[in-house]
Amino acid sequence: MTILSDVETLQDVAALLADLPQADTDAIEAARARQNTLTKPPGSLGRLEELAEFMAGWQGAERPVITKAQALVFAGNHGVCAKGVNPFPQEVTAQMVANFEHGGAAINQLCRASGAELSVVALDLDRPTADLSEAEAMSEAETLEALKRGAQAVDPEVQVLILGEMGIGNSTVAAALAFAAFGGEAEDWVGRGTGSDKAGRALKAQVVDQGVKLHAGKRGLQMLAALGGREQAAICGAVLQARAQSIPVLLDGYICTAAIAPLYDAAPAALDHCLVGHSSAEPGHARILQAIDKEPILTMRMALGEGSGAALALGVLKAALECHNGMATFAEAGVSDA
Amino acid sequence: MTILSDVETLQDVAALLADLPQADTDAIEAARARQNTLTKPPGSLGRLEELAEFMAGWQGAERPVITKAQALVFAGNHGVCAKGVNPFPQEVTAQMVANFEHGGAAINQLCRASGAELSVVALDLDRPTADLSEAEAMSEAETLEALKRGAQAVDPEVQVLILGEMGIGNSTVAAALAFAAFGGEAEDWVGRGTGSDKAGRALKAQVVDQGVKLHAGKRGLQMLAALGGREQAAICGAVLQARAQSIPVLLDGYICTAAIAPLYDAAPAALDHCLVGHSSAEPGHARILQAIDKEPILTMRMALGEGSGAALALGVLKAALECHNGMATFAEAGVSDA
Repeated sequence: MTILSDVETLQDVAALLADLPQADTDAIEAARARQNTLTKPPGSLGRLEELAEFMAGWQGAERPVITKAQALVFAGNHGVCAKGVNPFPQEVTAQMVANFEHGGAAINQLCRASGAELSVVALDLDRPTADLSEAEAMSEAETLEALKRGAQAVDPEVQVLILGEMGIGNSTVAAALAFAAFGGEAEDWVGRGTGSDKAGRALKAQVVDQGVKLHAGKRGLQMLAALGGREQAAICGAVLQARAQSIPVLLDGYICTAAIAPLYDAAPAALDHCLVGHSSAEPGHARILQAIDKEPILTMRMALGEGSGAALALGVLKAALECHNGMATFAEAGVSDA
Repeated sequence: MTILSDVETLQDVAALLADLPQADTDAIEAARARQNTLTKPPGSLGRLEELAEFMAGWQGAERPVITKAQALVFAGNHGVCAKGVNPFPQEVTAQMVANFEHGGAAINQLCRASGAELSVVALDLDRPTADLSEAEAMSEAETLEALKRGAQAVDPEVQVLILGEMGIGNSTVAAALAFAAFGGEAEDWVGRGTGSDKAGRALKAQVVDQGVKLHAGKRGLQMLAALGGREQAAICGAVLQARAQSIPVLLDGYICTAAIAPLYDAAPAALDHCLVGHSSAEPGHARILQAIDKEPILTMRMALGEGSGAALALGVLKAALECHNGMATFAEAGVSDA
C-alpha cells in the first residue's frame, strides 16, 4: 500500500496534497536546544546544524539517525527526441541503465562512498512518451501509472531517500516543466544538457517554447502529464510517498528538481521534506532553486544527473548527524561556556 | 628526519621554499585522459574531476587512492589575549584539547565520518606567545621549534593531510597575518570570531592595526614570528613537510588559511599542494581565498575551526576518487559515445 494505491485520477492525486504530514516542531526545538549545549560557539557549524534540525523534524526525534538510505534512479524515454534536441541516440538510456545495474556509473560509486542502497527503475524504455511539442506527452493513465511506480519503489525502512534520473532528451523536458511552472522565456531554462552546442540550444529553446505554448493553462499534475515524462512522474510519486511516511528526500540537480516543479505548482508545501543535494552547472537549476526557495547543499559544477549530486550530499547530511549526536555538551566536557 | 630537521634559522627555512617537489604533470594528463573515457559527458562531474586530477598529480599515479588520511589539530595560546580581544578565558584552549582527546568535539565526529585519524598537538599552552601588538609574538627559536613540531607530526604513510587549529584569541592572530600579507584595512580582516560583539570587533581591529604597524616591513617567515603563534607556525611546518613528501593538504577555514599566509608571502608556489576544504563564515576567509586564488570545496556557513571544514571536505575528495577509479569506460560498459 502506498499513498497513491487507491487514486484513479490526477485530481485524486491533487487532493492528497492538501493533507500531508508536517514536520514535528517539538523535535526541531529539542534538536536546536541540544545544538546550543554542544562544545562549539552557537551556530558555528552553520548548515550542519540546520540539517540536523531538519532531520529531527521529519524523524520526530531530538537525535535523528540515518542507518539506511535509499537511492532511486528512474529512467524514461521521450518522444521529443524526434525533434533532434539531443546528440545522443535514445538507446543510451537503456545502455546507461545496464551500466547502473553492472555498477559502472558515477551513481554506483557515489552511493557506495556515502552508504546508500541503489535501485534503478526503468520505465517502459521501449515506449517513449509522445512529443511534448506536438501533443500531451503522457495520457492521464500513463501519468498515474508512473506516479504509482515511483511511490511503490520507496523502501519504507529508510531514513532518507535520494532521487535521480536518466533519460536521453530529458533536459528538454526539464526546461519545459520549469518554463511552464516558473515563467520567463524558454531560453532562460535551456542549458547545454548532454553535449548540445549553440545551434542545439537554440533548437531546444524553440521546441520548449512550442510545447509550453501548446499546453498553456495546464497547471500542477496536468502540466506533468502534458510536458513531463515517466521518470519525472515517478520522481513526483516517490516524493509524495516519502512525504506520507515523513522520510526526507535529497533531490539531485536540474532535471530532478524540474521534475517536481508540477508538485510545487500545485502545492508548494508538498516539498517541505525535500532538500536539494547540489546546485547543477545547468544554468536553469539556480533559477529553479530561487523560485522554490531551496538552498543547495553542495556546489561542485556537476551536471550529470543520475542522483549523483544528491548521493554526494548524503555524506554531508550524515556528518551533520554525527556532530549532532556524537558531540559532548559543555557540561559533559567541562569546557567553560561564555 | 623531516624537511626541517637541520634548519637552524628562519632564513634556512626560506631557502627550502625555492626547491620543493612539483606535481607530476604526466600523471595529471593520464588522469584527465581517463576521465574523458568514463561513462559520463566530459566534464560533467565538475569539481570532482579536477580533484581526481589534482590527487593524481601529487600521488604520481593515473589512479590515485586515499587509504589513510591524517587530521592534525595544533593548539596554542596567545599573549594578545591580554588586550581583551576574546570573551572566552584562555583555559578554554586546554579544555578543548581535552575534549578532542576524549572524542567529544566536532572534529572527532567529522574525522570518524570521513575516515581520518586525528592527532592533537598542544603547543606549550601554559606559555602563551608575547602580545603581537607590543612585541614580536615569538622569538626565532620559538618559531623554529613550532615549525619543527608541526613537521614532525606529519605521518609519512598518509595520502592526504587535514590541518586544523584551536587557540583562544587566534582569530585576532589570523587577522593580523592576513592584513600584513594581503593589505587593505584592519577592519577588512576582523570578523566575529568566537562570540565577539560590535565593540569587541572594534577592539580587535585596533589591536590588529597596532600590531601590523609595529611590525611593518617584516615579510614571509619574519611575519610569522612577529604576528603568528605556535599553532600557526606548526601548520606552516606541517604544510612544508607534507610538500616534501608530495602529500596533498586540506586546509580548513579562516584561521588555518591565514596561518599559511606567511608561506604564500614568501613563495606562492609553496601552497600548490594545498586545497581549501571550505569557505568559512568569517568574512576574511573569502578575501584570503581570492588573494591566494584557491576555490573552497564546500560552503556550509561554518566557522568553528578545529579542521572541521577540511575533515568534512575529505568525504568529497574520497568520493571524487571513487568515481575516478571505479567508473566503467564507454568501451567497458558498451555505452554509445557521442
